[in-house]
Amino acid sequence: MSIARGRFVTFEGGEGAGKTTQIQRAAQWLRESGIEVVLTREPGGTSRGEQLRKILLERNEEPMPQSCELLLMFAARATHLANLIEPAVARGAWVLCDRFTDATYAYQGGGRGIPTGDIDALVQIVHPHRQPDRTVLLDLPVAAGMARAHLRNGTDGPDRFESERVDFFERVRQCYLDRAARDPARFRIVDAGGDVEQVAVAVRASRPAVPARTAT
Amino acid sequence: MSIARGRFVTFEGGEGAGKTTQIQRAAQWLRESGIEVVLTREPGGTSRGEQLRKILLERNEEPMPQSCELLLMFAARATHLANLIEPAVARGAWVLCDRFTDATYAYQGGGRGIPTGDIDALVQIVHPHRQPDRTVLLDLPVAAGMARAHLRNGTDGPDRFESERVDFFERVRQCYLDRAARDPARFRIVDAGGDVEQVAVAVRASRPAVPARTAT
Repeated sequence: MSIARGRFVTFEGGEGAGKTTQIQRAAQWLRESGIEVVLTREPGGTSRGEQLRKILLERNEEPMPQSCELLLMFAARATHLANLIEPAVARGAWVLCDRFTDATYAYQGGGRGIPTGDIDALVQIVHPHRQPDRTVLLDLPVAAGMARAHLRNGTDGPDRFESERVDFFERVRQCYLDRAARDPARFRIVDAGGDVEQVAVAVRASRPAVPARTAT
Repeated sequence: MSIARGRFVTFEGGEGAGKTTQIQRAAQWLRESGIEVVLTREPGGTSRGEQLRKILLERNEEPMPQSCELLLMFAARATHLANLIEPAVARGAWVLCDRFTDATYAYQGGGRGIPTGDIDALVQIVHPHRQPDRTVLLDLPVAAGMARAHLRNGTDGPDRFESERVDFFERVRQCYLDRAARDPARFRIVDAGGDVEQVAVAVRASRPAVPARTAT
């Protein structure tokens, strides 16, 4: 029997879309089907990737230029791909990854206005031939996502700072939807507005096909 | 009186070329001339830059993909430029920097064979409009540089591993010389084979011109 190549599945979506919950649910049912699952995230995923995540997220008196942030994201991605994602897929595992390059286009590109051509150039350097086999986009109107995030964080509602950020998240969402529209073979848009069970069913339906194993 | 814009001067060269000694000598005589000097290095120079330098140089069980190394170099460069080099030059200081982008072309490009087009793309993202005002290339035949490095490190001579690296350093040197030949207005090639005083005199002669200050 030949061993089926694994799958690389990414989960994308804005704040409050339920990525964390849904990626864990997906891992659970794949494991129950006897599939080796590797759950990972970006930025991060490996020892060096997590070091870089810390630098990306920490508060620091030294301002972070946009280009520095962008390059650190892709540096973390390069080591994540070489040392975790590619070996796992090669041995037949399904890698479920919380955010990937689409998030860079959505947040750094759509949200912050970094030129798409710069991101394209980095894709050519870091993963010219690797795309996710499937990208599950958990989509939710920005207001609904923010309300959920507030519920989770136990706060009343958006403060002034967050209200100003609505525009930012609208651009992020639009960029995700535009990318999904341009690559329907890879993307599945899942309405993240239902309850956890409903969304989990839709996510499950959006999994990539498993090829029939070749008989020996 | 208008304040003269500062200068950005980079020092390049292979192993044993004497960069560290010469950059300190240059800083000394510039300071004696009443110029504010900022001595810095790459990768590094700022708090975040030094964090990234540590990640670049540390031994780690996780292999470092070439693309990761390249992006970390330019990420460090982005924060170094924005938070140290550009503000210093803007206030009139002379920034003397131990290695810069030419080193990336020489070591990652010439030495390791990373495509020059990848490095060009990162230059376009990180510093499309910024070049050093002057680059001092301390040039030395590879064998002479390695002999000096051994003297400094108190070892007998090149071991097997280092002998294999002679080819690498030859490619690095050739890349530096090629870049200098293509941009003679920016580069000064200094023969690093003489004694410290001789080289210091040649470095001094290669400093960029200081424009006459405009009288008010």
